[in-house]
Amino acid sequence: MLYLVGLGLGDATDITVKGLQAVRGCSRVYLEAYTSILTVGKEALEKFYGRELILADRELVEQQADQILQDADATDVAFLVVGDPFGATTHTDLLLRAVHAGIPYRVIHNASVLNAVGCCGLQLYNFGETVSVVFWTDDWRPESFYDKICKNRAAGLHTLCLLDIKVKEQSIENLMRGKKIYEPPRYMTVSQAADQLLQIIQRRRGQGEELGFTEDTVCVGVARLGADDQMIRTAPLRQLVSCDLGGPLHSLVVTGRLHPLEVDMLRLSAEPNALDQLHMTDSSTYTS
Amino acid sequence: MLYLVGLGLGDATDITVKGLQAVRGCSRVYLEAYTSILTVGKEALEKFYGRELILADRELVEQQADQILQDADATDVAFLVVGDPFGATTHTDLLLRAVHAGIPYRVIHNASVLNAVGCCGLQLYNFGETVSVVFWTDDWRPESFYDKICKNRAAGLHTLCLLDIKVKEQSIENLMRGKKIYEPPRYMTVSQAADQLLQIIQRRRGQGEELGFTEDTVCVGVARLGADDQMIRTAPLRQLVSCDLGGPLHSLVVTGRLHPLEVDMLRLSAEPNALDQLHMTDSSTYTS
Repeated sequence: MLYLVGLGLGDATDITVKGLQAVRGCSRVYLEAYTSILTVGKEALEKFYGRELILADRELVEQQADQILQDADATDVAFLVVGDPFGATTHTDLLLRAVHAGIPYRVIHNASVLNAVGCCGLQLYNFGETVSVVFWTDDWRPESFYDKICKNRAAGLHTLCLLDIKVKEQSIENLMRGKKIYEPPRYMTVSQAADQLLQIIQRRRGQGEELGFTEDTVCVGVARLGADDQMIRTAPLRQLVSCDLGGPLHSLVVTGRLHPLEVDMLRLSAEPNALDQLHMTDSSTYTS
Repeated sequence: MLYLVGLGLGDATDITVKGLQAVRGCSRVYLEAYTSILTVGKEALEKFYGRELILADRELVEQQADQILQDADATDVAFLVVGDPFGATTHTDLLLRAVHAGIPYRVIHNASVLNAVGCCGLQLYNFGETVSVVFWTDDWRPESFYDKICKNRAAGLHTLCLLDIKVKEQSIENLMRGKKIYEPPRYMTVSQAADQLLQIIQRRRGQGEELGFTEDTVCVGVARLGADDQMIRTAPLRQLVSCDLGGPLHSLVVTGRLHPLEVDMLRLSAEPNALDQLHMTDSSTYTS
C-alpha cells in the first residue's frame, strides 16, 4: 500500500492521528522536500514520528519514482507531503504510477494553505483562482499573475498568491557544465512579492493602462501559517514592500470586495487606521 | 484560551495530534453540529478523545456565544469544527467575540473539502469561485450558482459545489406557531444537485439561452471525502442524476478546461468510455 500523507502546516504535531499511525506502520517513509517546508526540519519529524525519513527531492520523485514504489504491493510505503497531498502536480503523477503498477493507495488529508489562509479573516468562498508569483530573473519577468488577480478583483474575489520556492536549483553555469552543485534554497517573501507587483503596476501605469489593482489595494501578508509564530499583516500593497514577516513560508492575499465581517477580521492584523481608506460603497460591501 | 480545532474529514482519527492534545487539556469541549458532519457520531468522538462533548447547534453558537466563551480567559475551552475552523462564517464571528472579550485564541487547522477535493484528480489551482447549491422549495428556486459555474467555465476553471445541509430546521407551520419541533436532518445528494442543475439547463434552453454548462459537461460526484468508504464518480451531468453514492456528505465538481493529467486521474473514477466524448481542442487541453 502507498500512503500519501499530508503533514499539515506548522510542526511535527500537525500530522493527523490517522497519518501518524500509517507512518509508524510503514517499512519506508519518504519526505517530499521541494514543494513546501514546515517550520521544523527532518530530524524533529523523525524524532516525533519515531521513524527514519528518506528525503525525496524533485529528481527522485519525478525521475526515479519506481524506487519509491518498489515492493509497495507487498509492503507499506508512506510518502509525506507538507500541507495536503494534492497541493502539487507531481504527487498526482506518483499516485497514477502506483495505480498503473497495480499498487493500492490511500490518501490521508491535512490542512493546506488553500484552506488555512481563511484564518486571516477573508471568507474562503470569496476567493477566485489561485496564482503563483515566481522569482523574476534578468531576462524572465512574467506578469500573468497580475492579470489573473485583476480578473478576480473585477469579479469581487480575493486572490491567494503562492510565492515561489527554489530548492536544489542549479545556476545556469553549473547546469551547462553538468555540475550537480546546487544554489542555497530561496523562499520568496511577502516583501519581494509586493515589490514585483509594484514594478508591474508602475510599468503599466507608465503605459497609460487602466489598473484593476494598485499600490493602494488592501493586501494580506501571511507567514508560517499554522505555526506557533505565525504572522499576519494587513496593509495597502505599497506598505507590504517594507514589512519583515520573518522566516519562510510566506503567502500573499490580494483582497477583492470586502464584507463588513471580513473588514472586522482584517483589522486584527492591521495597524490602527490602516484600513481607514476603505470606502463603504453600499450597505454591505467595501472596496479598497 | 479558546481553541478552534478542525477535525478534518472522515472519522475520529482525522484530528491532528496537536488538536487532540488541546482537546484533552480543555475544561469544556463543544462540537459544532450544524455546518458539517463526520461519518461517525458524537459518541465515537467522545470515546476516542476521552472527553465529553457539548453539542453546539446554530442557536447556541449564534445567539448564546457568551455561554461558550464563559471563563475562557481563565480556563481552556475547545470548539470543534468538522473540516477546518474557517469553513463557515459563524466560526469567524465566535473568534471576533473572543477577541473583543479579551480572550486569547488559537486555531488548529485541518483538511477541508476545499483542499481534499483535489483527490478526484482536478488540480486545486484550476478551481474558480466555490458555490453553494441550496435545496429548492416550491416557491424559492434560486439559480445564481448556475451562473457562477458558467463564469468559472468560461475562464477554463473548475467549480466546487457545496451541497445544502438542513439540520434542526423547523417547518414553516411549526415556526409560525413558535413550536420548537425540528424536521429530520437533510443532506443534499449528488443526484439531487444534478437534478436541480438539469432543470435549470432545460428551463434556460427552452428560453433559447446559449448555455455554458450542459447535461454533457463532465462532472465529479464526491461522497464522504476522506473517509474509508469515500466514493468518487466521474460522468456527464445527466448520468449523475441516477447515481447513488450512499450516505452524506456529498459534493459536486463541475469541470472546466481539462489538462491531460487531470483526464488521466478522472478516468480512475469514470466508467470505461465515459470520457470518450472529450475532444482535444489543442495540444494540451480538453473540453467537455
